Amino acid sequence: MHISVEQLKQTTLKALAAQGYNADESATILDVLMYAQLRGNNQGVVKLIGAGMPKNPNAGEIKIVHETKLSARLDGAQNHGMIVLNQAVDMAIEKASAHDFGIVGTRNTNTSTGAIGYYARRIAEHGLIGFVFSGSNLYVAMHGSYEPIFGTNPLAIGIPSAGKPIVFDMATSAIARFGVIEAKTAGRPLPAGVAVDAQGNPTTDAAAALAGAILTFGGYKGAALSMIVEVLTGPLVGAAFVGFGDVATDCGNLAIAIHPGLLTDAGAFEADVARLTERVKNAKRLPGVDEIFIPGERGDQLWETALGSGSVAIDDALYAALEKAAG
Amino acid sequence: MHISVEQLKQTTLKALAAQGYNADESATILDVLMYAQLRGNNQGVVKLIGAGMPKNPNAGEIKIVHETKLSARLDGAQNHGMIVLNQAVDMAIEKASAHDFGIVGTRNTNTSTGAIGYYARRIAEHGLIGFVFSGSNLYVAMHGSYEPIFGTNPLAIGIPSAGKPIVFDMATSAIARFGVIEAKTAGRPLPAGVAVDAQGNPTTDAAAALAGAILTFGGYKGAALSMIVEVLTGPLVGAAFVGFGDVATDCGNLAIAIHPGLLTDAGAFEADVARLTERVKNAKRLPGVDEIFIPGERGDQLWETALGSGSVAIDDALYAALEKAAG
Repeated sequence: MHISVEQLKQTTLKALAAQGYNADESATILDVLMYAQLRGNNQGVVKLIGAGMPKNPNAGEIKIVHETKLSARLDGAQNHGMIVLNQAVDMAIEKASAHDFGIVGTRNTNTSTGAIGYYARRIAEHGLIGFVFSGSNLYVAMHGSYEPIFGTNPLAIGIPSAGKPIVFDMATSAIARFGVIEAKTAGRPLPAGVAVDAQGNPTTDAAAALAGAILTFGGYKGAALSMIVEVLTGPLVGAAFVGFGDVATDCGNLAIAIHPGLLTDAGAFEADVARLTERVKNAKRLPGVDEIFIPGERGDQLWETALGSGSVAIDDALYAALEKAAG
Repeated sequence: MHISVEQLKQTTLKALAAQGYNADESATILDVLMYAQLRGNNQGVVKLIGAGMPKNPNAGEIKIVHETKLSARLDGAQNHGMIVLNQAVDMAIEKASAHDFGIVGTRNTNTSTGAIGYYARRIAEHGLIGFVFSGSNLYVAMHGSYEPIFGTNPLAIGIPSAGKPIVFDMATSAIARFGVIEAKTAGRPLPAGVAVDAQGNPTTDAAAALAGAILTFGGYKGAALSMIVEVLTGPLVGAAFVGFGDVATDCGNLAIAIHPGLLTDAGAFEADVARLTERVKNAKRLPGVDEIFIPGERGDQLWETALGSGSVAIDDALYAALEKAAG
């Protein structure tokens, strides 16, 4: 079905209110969810259906537990991951704008941070190079294993440009956890090679995958990258990791902002990034390839189309479930 | 064949002298080459055979063209990439040791920087988190293309640990350029899916791949990561990139060092990294998997075995070619 973006937003806001969020909190979460939903990213409103992501009634004040000129670490006090990470990103942008570098970690947040390209893009929009890493509950197996001991461990990188920013956002898992949930909701099989069941057998059944483990992308290289993200979102920010602390309630995140002026003229850098982007777009294409997409560009096109037309396609079952969550 | 590590070093030093390097330069290059060769990494002494990597007779003094408390950019003045990047890494370590963060870029270097895990490991050995990115000549196609417009664009990440450092080192290409050259020298076919010929047809022929393009690892995610590395080693450091400047003689590199104390207690961090490593090693294994390796560990084992026994296996044809290069 197609619905208006405005209607989708209103239904989403009702679901957020039903799950206990106040107006300020809902505005931030809505922005992150719409970024994903309108780009065809599977970290959108699916998060609100079923058990959803109710506000933790014991959530307290977000606290800065450690701070230097270049850095901070936040205790999220069980506030929503999107709210806490967004605040961390604000701080990283502030520090890097003032001192050329900012690194801010968070721990003790409740539920997922969503499509982390959102935060990397925000950093890039301030003329800074952004790196964002996000931990999650244990869903993913190491290369050679079938035991879920890592999060889906996404990383996002934002690069400012004289054209549109380059925004790279990927799970280091072969599929996002919400991709598996979305497949289960829609009754679709998973692609081959992305998951194993609880006994370690390859599976395309989403329910079996949820009981087993998701694999990493790109073989041992993807697994190694996943382990690095685990370090950066676990030990480095004092959050839980497999076997140490409660990973279900203490996920970590890390945001880094680097001013390109540390190395070169920032304007020349952005102009060169735009030149490189143009050249990549115009590279010779393999047979059957209509267009070469730079990181984030396909999502940008969907997003702009939705915002331009004011209308967006959404899976019927998903929207029905969202309406149910909205009460 | 097996030869003594000492004999391999002496032959390598002779080849370096024959290619114009003085004793200081040769010591640095030897260290980087042996790191790769003794770990079974294909960025070892193969670099010295055939055309080799002769010193540029016009190499000048390495110059700092831009510097802040946290950063520097070096003009390598056509010195060897290993020498210039090693100096950049020294500076990044110094800056991060003094100010918690250091970022140093290089451009205008001659020939390859080798196995860049070497530099990431050096940063980690100083208790710092290291990121190293390295540009190269144009060998790799973007996802959807068959035109070589990126370097093999490796990235390496070093994580300090109370145990051994984690050292992740990978090309974002599906195979390293020197892996292709090594296959050609040994008369071996390439693995399937890593390269295309000059017309864009899949090939396992190393010579056809050298005339065509290497593909990226892990589908569009690997390609996106390759493009990010292209930005960080091209526009960000003022080095050449496809269509802008001479990529054959002006490759860029970037080294970043981050003090974990910016976020947490450095000792607790290293202890937690060792705990995580231990837990990953002991994860349940898939059938047929004897051991789970953390990033860098397999290379470490080969390295330690070679250093412990004083002897190492090397391909007959490769060693014969190295002896020829040694004159």
